[in-house]
Amino acid sequence: MTQEISRLPVSELTALSISVLEAHGLSAVDAKDASEILVLADLFGLSTHGVSRLVSYTDRLRLGGINAEPNLKVDALAPALLRIDADNGVGPLVGARAVRAAIKAAEQTGVALALVHGSNHFGPVAPYCYLAAQAGFATIIASNATLSITPWGGKETRLGNNPIGFGVPRPDGDPVILDMALSVAARAKIRSAAKAGESIPMGWATDAEGRPTSNAAEALKGFLLPVGGHKGYGLAIMVDLFAGLLSGASYLTRVSSWQDNPDQPQNLGHFFLVVDTKRLGDSDWLIERMSDFSAIVHDTQPAVPGSAVQLPGEREFMRMKAQIAEGVDIPSDLLHELGTLANRRT
Amino acid sequence: MTQEISRLPVSELTALSISVLEAHGLSAVDAKDASEILVLADLFGLSTHGVSRLVSYTDRLRLGGINAEPNLKVDALAPALLRIDADNGVGPLVGARAVRAAIKAAEQTGVALALVHGSNHFGPVAPYCYLAAQAGFATIIASNATLSITPWGGKETRLGNNPIGFGVPRPDGDPVILDMALSVAARAKIRSAAKAGESIPMGWATDAEGRPTSNAAEALKGFLLPVGGHKGYGLAIMVDLFAGLLSGASYLTRVSSWQDNPDQPQNLGHFFLVVDTKRLGDSDWLIERMSDFSAIVHDTQPAVPGSAVQLPGEREFMRMKAQIAEGVDIPSDLLHELGTLANRRT
Repeated sequence: MTQEISRLPVSELTALSISVLEAHGLSAVDAKDASEILVLADLFGLSTHGVSRLVSYTDRLRLGGINAEPNLKVDALAPALLRIDADNGVGPLVGARAVRAAIKAAEQTGVALALVHGSNHFGPVAPYCYLAAQAGFATIIASNATLSITPWGGKETRLGNNPIGFGVPRPDGDPVILDMALSVAARAKIRSAAKAGESIPMGWATDAEGRPTSNAAEALKGFLLPVGGHKGYGLAIMVDLFAGLLSGASYLTRVSSWQDNPDQPQNLGHFFLVVDTKRLGDSDWLIERMSDFSAIVHDTQPAVPGSAVQLPGEREFMRMKAQIAEGVDIPSDLLHELGTLANRRT
Repeated sequence: MTQEISRLPVSELTALSISVLEAHGLSAVDAKDASEILVLADLFGLSTHGVSRLVSYTDRLRLGGINAEPNLKVDALAPALLRIDADNGVGPLVGARAVRAAIKAAEQTGVALALVHGSNHFGPVAPYCYLAAQAGFATIIASNATLSITPWGGKETRLGNNPIGFGVPRPDGDPVILDMALSVAARAKIRSAAKAGESIPMGWATDAEGRPTSNAAEALKGFLLPVGGHKGYGLAIMVDLFAGLLSGASYLTRVSSWQDNPDQPQNLGHFFLVVDTKRLGDSDWLIERMSDFSAIVHDTQPAVPGSAVQLPGEREFMRMKAQIAEGVDIPSDLLHELGTLANRRT
């Protein structure tokens, strides 16, 4: 089955996303802030976390599971430490405001951390790292998530596939951005293999009993395995502690599933650390060091002759430039659905 | 070949470590601070990063590769952002002072980051996370390191197996601490397999041409593979950017090898982020949440009946308690060597 793809200018996709959110009760400015994040995700090629998410977001907005008119409360617990009550707002709106609040604090203190509770799925991490990098800030950003992983040695999903991202700005070019979830492979890949009757590599997933399996159908009944085994498990736990527990949000099994309970608040938590690189040295200092770093990586002898050794994020920036120039690719049926959602009134 | 093991009280091991460092020119207070970190490493069972490191540290102190009397310079670039010039001091001394400086700043600002340059191998990450947790601080701590990994898709070692650690305090018990390097397996494990003529699992390492191999002997000529493939590679890059590049230290191939050039400064860099959890809520609030979190993880159904599902760091704390009660296990030949080093005068 091949999917029909439509291509449209970035500005049109942004306008469509804004219309969808406004049609579901968001103010113009809130719809714009949230849409900036989602469209950046599509530009980076992270389409599973871009405007496609508007379908579930608006479903939950209609059901009252997400608050269309949140009153975000920023509490400065200390000069460099903010706690933000997201009032159950749309995730990408919350994230956009939180990273901005952290940057504002860090302009005074050099470094600041915003811990967010009462939030929802905030899309991918990369767009937040990108926006902060454009302002000269290095970032560590993370969120907890709906359950999909079993604690290491267990056979029950009690942990989210919690994403974490890092960004370092480069004043004369693209920042270096790593945005990763903590499973070896996405569930979607296992689903494709099961459909095609193919096996999956050992190490991607377990069966329902928690035993390693290469059988894709059995794996779908089981659990995603974390990257690096106990190391990825450990990272998922630490993200949940920082973004969930310390922020005052839910964590582990206390996180409500947006799929099973779309009408309930999830109370997800996020972590936004920003570091003002302008305090570390002037622009020339950072440009020189980043250029040197980049050259050393790029000059590595490739294992496969002619292939490129890349820095994290390079593929995404290439995709972004191409899509800004040529238009963004969106499945036609999704585009149709978004058009319907934009004309709907809650 | 079985190794003869000696067991001695913690206080004796600490005194021995202090004597070794004093015999190589460190002041009493510097020797004590550095030894606290190394002995904690042994207590946690991380013996490859404990007092065994004194052999190479003192070798370099004698050769002038490490400065026995560093004058650490702490520069407050902003209220929450410190840059520390370690003046080529012994790593664990530098680390102990840096985490303390970060905590002092964070007492005012809630969150603080210390970026360190001009340093050396600082032992494992866990002891720093532990000391900060005892004072109520959550931590993200990382360091760059001597080269051992090839950038993803490459076939040259141009990146360190950079360790990163996270800690969250628990006022009524052991903190949760994750301390990980970014390779799938340690080189020592591959060396053992090669000696025994055994194969290694695919995914641990490549041969010299950067091709995946299960042949341990070929793997020794090749490269360690990062956890999660491109994800672990990405993490190693981000740690190098934060701890090395942003701190003003060396990075990638600019890091001098302590093995090849023991008489040269390495100019390694570290990253110490501390968050004052006492600003987030009172002790009861954190105790309640950490107990709940811990219970949810521990109550996970185990994949193997009767086995325990654990939080990161639990194994290390069990080992610590046992060794505090019964004494620390140290290979007898290492103990003999340390005795010789303690009686040596530079």
